[in-house]
Amino acid sequence: MRIARFSIDGNVAFGAVEGEGPDSLVLDIIKGIPFAEFELSGTKVPLNKVRLLPPVLPNKVVAIGRNYAEHAAELGNEVPEFPVTFFKPSTSVIGSGDEIVYPAFSSDVQYEAELAVVIGRMCREVPRERAKDVILGYTCANDVTARDVQKREKQWARAKGFDTSCPLGPWIETDVDPADLTIQCTVNGEQRQLGRTSDMIRSVEELIVHITEAMTLLPGDVILTGTPSGVGPLADGDEVAVSIEGIGTLANKVIKRG
Amino acid sequence: MRIARFSIDGNVAFGAVEGEGPDSLVLDIIKGIPFAEFELSGTKVPLNKVRLLPPVLPNKVVAIGRNYAEHAAELGNEVPEFPVTFFKPSTSVIGSGDEIVYPAFSSDVQYEAELAVVIGRMCREVPRERAKDVILGYTCANDVTARDVQKREKQWARAKGFDTSCPLGPWIETDVDPADLTIQCTVNGEQRQLGRTSDMIRSVEELIVHITEAMTLLPGDVILTGTPSGVGPLADGDEVAVSIEGIGTLANKVIKRG
Repeated sequence: MRIARFSIDGNVAFGAVEGEGPDSLVLDIIKGIPFAEFELSGTKVPLNKVRLLPPVLPNKVVAIGRNYAEHAAELGNEVPEFPVTFFKPSTSVIGSGDEIVYPAFSSDVQYEAELAVVIGRMCREVPRERAKDVILGYTCANDVTARDVQKREKQWARAKGFDTSCPLGPWIETDVDPADLTIQCTVNGEQRQLGRTSDMIRSVEELIVHITEAMTLLPGDVILTGTPSGVGPLADGDEVAVSIEGIGTLANKVIKRG
Repeated sequence: MRIARFSIDGNVAFGAVEGEGPDSLVLDIIKGIPFAEFELSGTKVPLNKVRLLPPVLPNKVVAIGRNYAEHAAELGNEVPEFPVTFFKPSTSVIGSGDEIVYPAFSSDVQYEAELAVVIGRMCREVPRERAKDVILGYTCANDVTARDVQKREKQWARAKGFDTSCPLGPWIETDVDPADLTIQCTVNGEQRQLGRTSDMIRSVEELIVHITEAMTLLPGDVILTGTPSGVGPLADGDEVAVSIEGIGTLANKVIKRG
């Protein structure tokens, strides 16, 4: 099932996405929330008549750096002995169709296409064999990064945590195996990144074990699993899109203010 | 005014702390929340009859490293050109009287006494001359750190973000000037850290400018302003206390499970 979050007539709702093709998708409105048992209402609205929101409002986004060997190498880094683990704040989250606002304190903002894991239940110290049980589904993420700031500031809260730096969407796919999916990033329609999730150094299950060894994950929390090689700059007016096989496409326009 | 958050008979409330001395404090229950205009109800309960909670439940905690020159030096670091800025997640927050749970993945957990700033209103790109306007008040924090993990993991999400690693409390003091306060940490009654906030390299106002240049702060968000020199280890059973002049004392016991 594909679960979207959207606003209609000033209300926020979840809906199950039905149909294929950009213009014929409909949302069957969910009674309740997708983190508990829920029913479909049978009330349907065309997806192109609503505003998609980020599919979850995470309490926290836990992100992993250097989880694809070729990407680590392209930035001159070695594959780390321990996963590089950092946070993006909830204030950085936007949905598909929202604008990435180029921050004034950077002159080198870059895209990073990533598979995002949406947590379905509160959990800590999850053993590997139970990691799948805590996952609600998967969505696309763009770990937008101010590369110049990342290079000069030792911790990445500003470089990777600025407002609009965490596009998530377009929806949560609950029925996909994340082990070997094509992940792609385009800018203005040109392909910039093309990888496979099978090239991740640590699997989704291993990352859940690693993170929950330290901290509790809450329903709606999100894990970003690292980006393949091919990262590069974004400019004012660019249209950036992250597509993952079996999930969908997250599209955002970059704007500069002021 | 000192504003505490507490639970009584299963309900959560804010209250204004009145009186002096540990056994004669009373809470005048607040009608509403302290992030908007509010009134005191006149209904009073003795503080020692309630359970204190963290004085806020922050959406995010933004923390600053190496903001006291002597502390940077004691860990072999230089004062950074840009403030070291990182996040602690809301799942790490506990209140005064709660237990710090020694995590199984570390064998060197340390205390770091810090002045915490509680944000009162949503803000971004705050100019220095208006930084005071976005502050609700101040509380004590312990930036509990798994030092061994911090040394081996390049980003500090696990080292400084594990569950119970962010004690805050005991309450928010709204009427104190943070410019020159004594800040102290004791372990089992023995003094381990003694500093003055006037030794901070960047002031509270400068930190608010730096952080909000990148990201929106929300009411209840918390800024940790760095620790003075004297950091050191905690052990199972230790009683650690952070005291700041004009604010109060945040006390927590360390326990090891399993």
